[in-house]
Amino acid sequence: MVVATQSLEELCINSIRFLAIDAVEKANSGHPGLPMGAAPMAFVLWDRLMRYNPKNPNWLNRDRFVLSAGHGCMLQYALLYLTGYDDITLDDLKQFRQWESKTPGHPENFMTQGVEVTTGPLGQGIANGVGLAMAEAHLAAKFNKPDCQIIDHYTYVILGDGCNMEGVSGEACSLAGHLGLGKLIALYDDNHISIDGSTDLAFTEDVGKRFEAYGWHVQHVPDGNTNLDAIHKAIEAAKAVTDKPSLIKVTTTIGFGSPNKANTHGVHGAALGADEVKATREHLDWKYPEFEVPEDALKHFRKAVDRGAEYEEEWNKLFTRYKTEYAEEAAVVERMASGKLPENWEKALPAYTPQDKKDATRNQSGATLNAMAGVLPELIGGSADLAPSNKTLLKSSKDFQKGAYENRNLRFGVREHGMGAICNGIALHKSGLIPYGATFLVFTDYMRASIRLSALSHAGVIWVMTHDSVALGEDGPTHQPIEHIPTLRAIPDLIVIRPADGNETSGAYKVAVEKAKPAQGLATPSLLALSRQGLPNLEGSSIDAVAQGAYILSDSDGTPDIILIGTGSEVHICVDAAEQLRGDGKKVRVVSMPSWELFEEQDESYRESVLPKAVTKRLAVEAGSSFGWCRYVGAEGDTISIDRFGASAPGDVALEKFGYTVDNIVAKAKAL
Amino acid sequence: MVVATQSLEELCINSIRFLAIDAVEKANSGHPGLPMGAAPMAFVLWDRLMRYNPKNPNWLNRDRFVLSAGHGCMLQYALLYLTGYDDITLDDLKQFRQWESKTPGHPENFMTQGVEVTTGPLGQGIANGVGLAMAEAHLAAKFNKPDCQIIDHYTYVILGDGCNMEGVSGEACSLAGHLGLGKLIALYDDNHISIDGSTDLAFTEDVGKRFEAYGWHVQHVPDGNTNLDAIHKAIEAAKAVTDKPSLIKVTTTIGFGSPNKANTHGVHGAALGADEVKATREHLDWKYPEFEVPEDALKHFRKAVDRGAEYEEEWNKLFTRYKTEYAEEAAVVERMASGKLPENWEKALPAYTPQDKKDATRNQSGATLNAMAGVLPELIGGSADLAPSNKTLLKSSKDFQKGAYENRNLRFGVREHGMGAICNGIALHKSGLIPYGATFLVFTDYMRASIRLSALSHAGVIWVMTHDSVALGEDGPTHQPIEHIPTLRAIPDLIVIRPADGNETSGAYKVAVEKAKPAQGLATPSLLALSRQGLPNLEGSSIDAVAQGAYILSDSDGTPDIILIGTGSEVHICVDAAEQLRGDGKKVRVVSMPSWELFEEQDESYRESVLPKAVTKRLAVEAGSSFGWCRYVGAEGDTISIDRFGASAPGDVALEKFGYTVDNIVAKAKAL
Repeated sequence: MVVATQSLEELCINSIRFLAIDAVEKANSGHPGLPMGAAPMAFVLWDRLMRYNPKNPNWLNRDRFVLSAGHGCMLQYALLYLTGYDDITLDDLKQFRQWESKTPGHPENFMTQGVEVTTGPLGQGIANGVGLAMAEAHLAAKFNKPDCQIIDHYTYVILGDGCNMEGVSGEACSLAGHLGLGKLIALYDDNHISIDGSTDLAFTEDVGKRFEAYGWHVQHVPDGNTNLDAIHKAIEAAKAVTDKPSLIKVTTTIGFGSPNKANTHGVHGAALGADEVKATREHLDWKYPEFEVPEDALKHFRKAVDRGAEYEEEWNKLFTRYKTEYAEEAAVVERMASGKLPENWEKALPAYTPQDKKDATRNQSGATLNAMAGVLPELIGGSADLAPSNKTLLKSSKDFQKGAYENRNLRFGVREHGMGAICNGIALHKSGLIPYGATFLVFTDYMRASIRLSALSHAGVIWVMTHDSVALGEDGPTHQPIEHIPTLRAIPDLIVIRPADGNETSGAYKVAVEKAKPAQGLATPSLLALSRQGLPNLEGSSIDAVAQGAYILSDSDGTPDIILIGTGSEVHICVDAAEQLRGDGKKVRVVSMPSWELFEEQDESYRESVLPKAVTKRLAVEAGSSFGWCRYVGAEGDTISIDRFGASAPGDVALEKFGYTVDNIVAKAKAL
Repeated sequence: MVVATQSLEELCINSIRFLAIDAVEKANSGHPGLPMGAAPMAFVLWDRLMRYNPKNPNWLNRDRFVLSAGHGCMLQYALLYLTGYDDITLDDLKQFRQWESKTPGHPENFMTQGVEVTTGPLGQGIANGVGLAMAEAHLAAKFNKPDCQIIDHYTYVILGDGCNMEGVSGEACSLAGHLGLGKLIALYDDNHISIDGSTDLAFTEDVGKRFEAYGWHVQHVPDGNTNLDAIHKAIEAAKAVTDKPSLIKVTTTIGFGSPNKANTHGVHGAALGADEVKATREHLDWKYPEFEVPEDALKHFRKAVDRGAEYEEEWNKLFTRYKTEYAEEAAVVERMASGKLPENWEKALPAYTPQDKKDATRNQSGATLNAMAGVLPELIGGSADLAPSNKTLLKSSKDFQKGAYENRNLRFGVREHGMGAICNGIALHKSGLIPYGATFLVFTDYMRASIRLSALSHAGVIWVMTHDSVALGEDGPTHQPIEHIPTLRAIPDLIVIRPADGNETSGAYKVAVEKAKPAQGLATPSLLALSRQGLPNLEGSSIDAVAQGAYILSDSDGTPDIILIGTGSEVHICVDAAEQLRGDGKKVRVVSMPSWELFEEQDESYRESVLPKAVTKRLAVEAGSSFGWCRYVGAEGDTISIDRFGASAPGDVALEKFGYTVDNIVAKAKAL
């Protein structure tokens, strides 16, 4: 494909290609194939259609772009550089995949301005995209006025075969079709190659037909390598369909331009090698050396800077008008997007006394969500088809549906993993929404990857997980969490909170909301583990104490003989057991420990005051696995744990059979 | 719907319904809706079409039945009782959902004969069904002769809306369509209701069209409540289509027969209540009291016993002929199905010495799989599109594809969760196949639910997980496991093994295969964590030592000053550090600890001999989270761990930055 002179577009597209090729080559690591094949469609998007301001990656009304096929990130990094984002210089491209560079091996939103979400694990990005589009639809429905459409942008996603095979993407896309998300446009890089080889090996379904079955608008561009006009027209046509999300299947050649490796799985995930880099330069008639971009191409790309400034300027004028005519709404939009919470919002949190009725923390969670909904318009969320069980419906709102996007109750369907990635997208829309996603704690197993990504990408999400132990009863071992709370604690940068009663539930949400929108620094997601069964409200519990992670609920005078550490639904039986033990003359301290992570955030002296090193007799009581508890009970301590699968039986029977009784605590404490 | 006299079929179908109603009512817990609605289709299946022997639930050539909508298990328990399975008596039905009953809240294959797989978590069952069908196809292709078709049975699945929303089912069904699994027949209980309410809330895709896109044969039975003939014809038509799996969408009313609760989400998951039970009895003109089955109905159902005996008798004759004419093949079939391994199979395991080249354990894993393939015809498996990276291709075989089912390389595509559930199905086909499923260790997050179910349901699967630490390098934090090995250890009844070199890799497989097909007792799945990077073969390592979980690799004379505990890729730097420390006059013991679970299986004296209580200075070195290590290092010990997310950089740089150097081990050891 030797061309005498290259058109300006070819110059630009090949600039993208060769930055990717050179960066991967220099790192001797990475994925050149997708950037080479998807450069044309990405060029059409970034150069002709997408509305963004390279100098302000946080402009509220920018179009969102997600590279769901995250391994192809050199495509995105090249475009960020070429279009003039400050965060990516040529040197950054040269540091591709090196320690602490701005250009890590998969796109990380917390490392690189201009990257909206963290992708890499396939299927996540397109599902994030559904969330981003849901956020746009919600805010538009809520805040736009007929004469003032301040929220009006598209969500563009590039995804590949891998993403399309992953179940999480099917879940999210089915929901997107149901919701009629017309501003979501996905470009499917149809190159028939994955790591194993041709998609003929395992993936021969009719993707277009499947998306039509979901209710999407589907088009096919057969020549995605050279027919820029067809790509452009298809995107325009997609934009014109306003009541369905759009899939554009763009057929390309992976590694386009490489004479020997194009269209093979070898070019998917390895550097071309010096010889092939040279051969590709010859094949595409590319005379420019490593990392050099022709001046004309760079100049053309950089028009995005002025364009972007204009877009934002126009929008600023619009928003100024909006502020004048709709001052109240504007104030809310600004506050939300600023990352600030409303003054005194926490006063809405329900507080309890021991006289208040026994209740399940899942119910108290529902009450708290509803109380917060009144003061936090940014709160939006739902359940993966367990709303009546998770208690997550906001009574003051209705269901978020096509034509009713202003509502706040998200109906995810039985799609935990999709829900997870969608919530991440809603949070990372960075417009100040605080999403919550709910299911049974045991089904965190279905969505662990998105929970982990919420932590890695600093997405301010609240994960609401009910039915948190064997106490859920008859549904049995497939539904009874055992190792889930410990293993969720093991995920870095995730706050896990297991409240014991109403006050602690309110306290958990106080922390979760503050972590989702911190006064300073990046957001942190929280996961709440809530009971199915009723629990008493405890003397000495408080909303504020939760932030300390663990606190003394009750104590004897002087140094304790033993410390009982309880979490969640087991705290009240520790309290009862302590009474008995004190009756027998023992000095007992009861510590409620709703959150390990929050406890570890406290200074040494506080932690020492709660769990003094000198007191080595400690008994931890939690209806779940012992995994990790040695950290707090030590060699001379013990736990009441369940290190086997559960069993189908009424919840109180299960708790008893597994040793969660006052008598057993007393016995084990005495044994120590 | 009062009927003067009920036909025999109605009598039978209502018998199913009322056993379910009464059992759920007595337990005051459970899901009556699906059994009531799906009773007709289940009756047609079990009474007219399925080939099984109630007196021999293990008959090799039985049709397989899976209730993917596992919450509806009273449907299955009722049928097991009615058709004459010994394991379920009327008393067992009365003990529905009670401690240690044979009728737990969701079907558990290890509790109840006649239940093939453990379902409950939605989407798993249909994916198990794909695995069961793959097993049948494989064995048929491998062992059948033109005049002797010893393997020839169907896999029937009943699934609902929930299963259809779950991503795992889409993954498996897309693969099933690609593979043309003609003996898989799925009945979709299309009742438009899920827990949240009508499927209009979140699930309005065209399911039939989606399945056609997957390459399935799709039919619709609009009246699944009363038109038994239509159901019967549809199943026959499905059987007649031999080159595609079949979906029959059977439209039903959830809770059919309940005058006030039918077609509501209230009847999905709660007992009807005494009043409604009474009203339903009136509505369906059911005069029989609680748990009483009309004699005529029971007699009719119990014809399954003689039918089943005949089916098995015929098949025994066939197999006797097969044994005569094809003695060698028959011996293999019998040995495999008996659960026995071939004599001396373990001699095929590669053994190494320190002189053998440095190599990644993922490569050694590939070598071992290939060596075992030669002596274990039951070994079958593959990767979720990472075969070249996981090194899981069996060179002596080809790809398992339509028309080539005799091959052993399974190409799952980028479908980790589907792969997991499919492998469980293959193992639980109980014909002696040992499946393995592979991906990157970090993507166990995508399939954790199926890994957990392999442990719960005692499926003899081998999970092959490579790229097991930050050492994988540049792919960065989305791909680098941190908490994965500890959190997998936390799953009960799962053996996690992290081999340090070639011998330990062979040893890991020795354990995994023996646990998959134990001489006695139930199977246990194993998960191997393997390195991307090359490692030396260690002096003192051995194949047999792995089964002990931890062993002394090298030691000084007398009581150690310190014990270095390494796992996998960190053992060799412990060895080097020990040399240095000994050079400084310290007494150092190096323990290689490939598996916690196997170590805990050893008796106290062995464990004491390896990690004597008296030696409290211990340093554990593992490139991952510290979570749980306090168990083995104690209060006076320490670890070299990573308790944050990883970073994109070359693997050796990452290891160094995170402290995995000989110098750091020496320093930390001295600090102790």
